[in-house]
Amino acid sequence: MITFYTYPGPNSRKAQIMLEESGEAYDTRKIDITKGEQFDPAFLAISPNNKIPAIVDHTPQGEVPVFETAAILTYLAEKSGRLLPAAGAKRFDVLAWLVWGTGSVGGTLPQLHHYADLPVPVPGTVERFTTEAVRLFKVLERRLQANEYICGEYSIADIPTFCSTAGWLQRVKQLSDGQLGDTPAIDRWLQAVAARPAVRRVG
Amino acid sequence: MITFYTYPGPNSRKAQIMLEESGEAYDTRKIDITKGEQFDPAFLAISPNNKIPAIVDHTPQGEVPVFETAAILTYLAEKSGRLLPAAGAKRFDVLAWLVWGTGSVGGTLPQLHHYADLPVPVPGTVERFTTEAVRLFKVLERRLQANEYICGEYSIADIPTFCSTAGWLQRVKQLSDGQLGDTPAIDRWLQAVAARPAVRRVG
Repeated sequence: MITFYTYPGPNSRKAQIMLEESGEAYDTRKIDITKGEQFDPAFLAISPNNKIPAIVDHTPQGEVPVFETAAILTYLAEKSGRLLPAAGAKRFDVLAWLVWGTGSVGGTLPQLHHYADLPVPVPGTVERFTTEAVRLFKVLERRLQANEYICGEYSIADIPTFCSTAGWLQRVKQLSDGQLGDTPAIDRWLQAVAARPAVRRVG
Repeated sequence: MITFYTYPGPNSRKAQIMLEESGEAYDTRKIDITKGEQFDPAFLAISPNNKIPAIVDHTPQGEVPVFETAAILTYLAEKSGRLLPAAGAKRFDVLAWLVWGTGSVGGTLPQLHHYADLPVPVPGTVERFTTEAVRLFKVLERRLQANEYICGEYSIADIPTFCSTAGWLQRVKQLSDGQLGDTPAIDRWLQAVAARPAVRRVG
């Protein structure tokens, strides 16, 4: 049994989709970040960077705590044998795009979120992070024009980027003032991932 | 034989330290990002996000291209059997802190670098990214007060955070205006990692 430490938000959604994809049993414990519960010592012992999501797997060999979305997805993939090849070039293709999704895409959009919604705009910031988001979505569009999913077959590489893209693609198009046009391959892929039973269960 | 695609900078240094730690043979190919060589189609086939570093391992089973620093370090660790446990709780401790170092630390400091060195300051930006850098270095100091290296024994988790911290700790202390004080555990760890033969060879 896995305990899933969560609070509603994009990173928790990424982890929960993979919990559903993995078929592992889990229960959910809410960490209310509006009340500072992420700083409780008991939670810091699991997630020392004071962020959700995190998991603890209660295994016969002992407890396995994992934090950071990319590590959680890798853990669940290796445990379940799903959505990450065990070896070979394809394994590292998936790991590279997984890290791209959590780090590059997942690092840029929260900055855009912050600056695009400020009551008093800060000069140049929305443009800076929009330019990078446009670059990333163009990389993704090229990739998905050549592949059904990011790494060919559906994998853990799709999950973080799906969550970020579903939430941000239209907004980035609006902010980009024409820099990012139609994205037919991304649109097709968003529909395909959204239709997966595991993704629908998370909502 | 591995081909290492690089240009001087912090991310290339992280990958090269692990190339040296792994004991794998490699040759170096410079991608001059000041001339736009990262957009050459031949390089994009290896690194579709148009970033250095990247590697290609020329194996008997075929070529294995890997991009994204965290994925490169994981590849070299799994290939060489060094600096990443093959299974168990410690494996995912290392992977979580690896991703923390490339994503959280490695995502924050370039923003600080950008905003701290602008000729015309942008209101609030240096403060925003300094506050996050201070938080991250406090997480690191706590961790290293309890562990000789980030995950106990030296591992791939140390390498990215070492490179970022060596380059940025003093500057963040200056910018933080007293928010980040002495860091004796980080200082000890920086010296220990810097003294490693592989790290000294990279310089």
